[in-house]
Amino acid sequence: MRKGRQSFEFENPPFILSGYSIVGPKEGLGRFGKSFDRVLEDDLWGEKTFEKCEVKLHRETVRAAIARARTESGLVDAMLSADLLNQIVAASFAAKDIDTVFLGLYGACSSFGEAMIIGSMLISGGFFDNVSCSTSSHFASAERQYRFPLELGNQRTPTAQWTVTAAGCTVIGKCPPAEGRRICIDSCTPGKVVDYGIDDESNMGACMAPAAAATLAAHFKEMERAPSYYDEIWTGDLGKYGMDLLRYLLVSEDIVLGNNYHDAGAEFYTTEQHPVQGGSGAGCSSSVFNSYILNRLKSGEVKRVLICPTGALLSKDSPLQGSTIPAVAHAFSVLSEE
Amino acid sequence: MRKGRQSFEFENPPFILSGYSIVGPKEGLGRFGKSFDRVLEDDLWGEKTFEKCEVKLHRETVRAAIARARTESGLVDAMLSADLLNQIVAASFAAKDIDTVFLGLYGACSSFGEAMIIGSMLISGGFFDNVSCSTSSHFASAERQYRFPLELGNQRTPTAQWTVTAAGCTVIGKCPPAEGRRICIDSCTPGKVVDYGIDDESNMGACMAPAAAATLAAHFKEMERAPSYYDEIWTGDLGKYGMDLLRYLLVSEDIVLGNNYHDAGAEFYTTEQHPVQGGSGAGCSSSVFNSYILNRLKSGEVKRVLICPTGALLSKDSPLQGSTIPAVAHAFSVLSEE
Repeated sequence: MRKGRQSFEFENPPFILSGYSIVGPKEGLGRFGKSFDRVLEDDLWGEKTFEKCEVKLHRETVRAAIARARTESGLVDAMLSADLLNQIVAASFAAKDIDTVFLGLYGACSSFGEAMIIGSMLISGGFFDNVSCSTSSHFASAERQYRFPLELGNQRTPTAQWTVTAAGCTVIGKCPPAEGRRICIDSCTPGKVVDYGIDDESNMGACMAPAAAATLAAHFKEMERAPSYYDEIWTGDLGKYGMDLLRYLLVSEDIVLGNNYHDAGAEFYTTEQHPVQGGSGAGCSSSVFNSYILNRLKSGEVKRVLICPTGALLSKDSPLQGSTIPAVAHAFSVLSEE
Repeated sequence: MRKGRQSFEFENPPFILSGYSIVGPKEGLGRFGKSFDRVLEDDLWGEKTFEKCEVKLHRETVRAAIARARTESGLVDAMLSADLLNQIVAASFAAKDIDTVFLGLYGACSSFGEAMIIGSMLISGGFFDNVSCSTSSHFASAERQYRFPLELGNQRTPTAQWTVTAAGCTVIGKCPPAEGRRICIDSCTPGKVVDYGIDDESNMGACMAPAAAATLAAHFKEMERAPSYYDEIWTGDLGKYGMDLLRYLLVSEDIVLGNNYHDAGAEFYTTEQHPVQGGSGAGCSSSVFNSYILNRLKSGEVKRVLICPTGALLSKDSPLQGSTIPAVAHAFSVLSEE
């Protein structure tokens, strides 16, 4: 079952029962716009603050994913969730209205990977029959918390990214759904914290690329799979520059990523939307996985996909105290069969 | 293995290999002072900021616990960690210097329970041979982040608590240590988020008592164990008033807590130290468990102990936006045998 120090091949692989995604209006106009389940008309969704909107975004995404999963009880056994707000209040306030065990996680924008890995292990280990794995982010709540007030109209640096307003939730279970293709999480490689000493909070791609390289190198070596084994390999939100860095770093490990390599953040928006390096945020990889990627796994258009969400570890204060920005990346692979 | 909706009895219970605790100077003068492994001389430990001190506190506690565990590799397979700083930077920065998979968690002051439960499941499920479970908090970094600058010298309300400067880490593994009593985690009950509508951030006991009551009631019922089954039952940091509330709430479930019921926060400081309702913080339950409680489990003075850390879910901003303060509590039981 365990392969090397970090990787695992599931003997009882958990199955994906459902996925759901809700995004903001700008995100609905982006490249994956037609794939999302729901696109909001504005960034507040009837709430008084952006933070409360993110709570609702998270809650409604989880609820819809659970409803779509059609579990026997209409519930899930546990909710594994994370977001970028201080003390993950979007996830934990969402959990108030969902009758299940709550396991709060934090791995910044890698959290969706962490949730899918821990959730898969808890199901494969026989503890839960089904769990929901969800993450969210909101452009306006993230800007306010990490960067500058929107009203300031600050200029973006050339390496900046745009936090997506989006939530994604996957429900996984020990038995496959009654109909359709069987889509399982067949392996995973949880990551270590990696720090290359980058301290520029406007260059998340450079902070996270080394962590993605470490996790992917461990995955390919320990699982004895080449990048070409997968139909597609997706990192979370490295952005365009971060993708280049990842390719560069992996070459020194004798790993060459081909045209099957994608980044959810880099491809999230159109060029006309001016996202600079691309989208980012904990909701980036989860919303793209639970829409565009999962839809094509369901149809069989892609059959073997590796997902590696990446997260930069910092707070609003840590760079001000001179700390560097370490990062972590958690990878899981998904297999779609008849 | 699974009992009811929330509780689990481990078929392959994981064993405690080691525990370690480091606390601040005030904590060293408290009721558990003589039990802690290390007491710092000041609140900065040679660092320039309280936040950096908390990183060091967390890192050195995990390192010492791993060294004491004497695992074959000198490492652990994964580090499950949490703290109260925004984006859990104490835990994640500590993880930079520890060569292992990092799984960041957040359940406020209940996080130690969450880490022990997830860690136990991942070991019992056969995924990891050993993991570290650690949490920390720091009085000065918490005051600054959640409340007021220390320099303001603010008066405390009668229901306030005092965030402990402390870190605790337990290393658990699939095999018992070569010598001494065998101490295992034999059952657990992860909790749901409970909200009684309390919105007073200076009354954490009232926020958390309903969550503790829900988790403990589920535990006693699903595990078919009475409170008297345990030599001791410990909640995390309800404080004195919160303890009264918990007793009151459990009576309506026909559960009466006897003299074997304790609260790590309420007993942390002496009355002369003026902690008002007692200690609190993510490091409260973990430092007390890994010192006073674990020492007596090792000696056999206590044999069956239930630990239920409790966490209030809020950020600095959420009460300012009119949100209530929901809470969560995660319980695990420990068994000490010859």
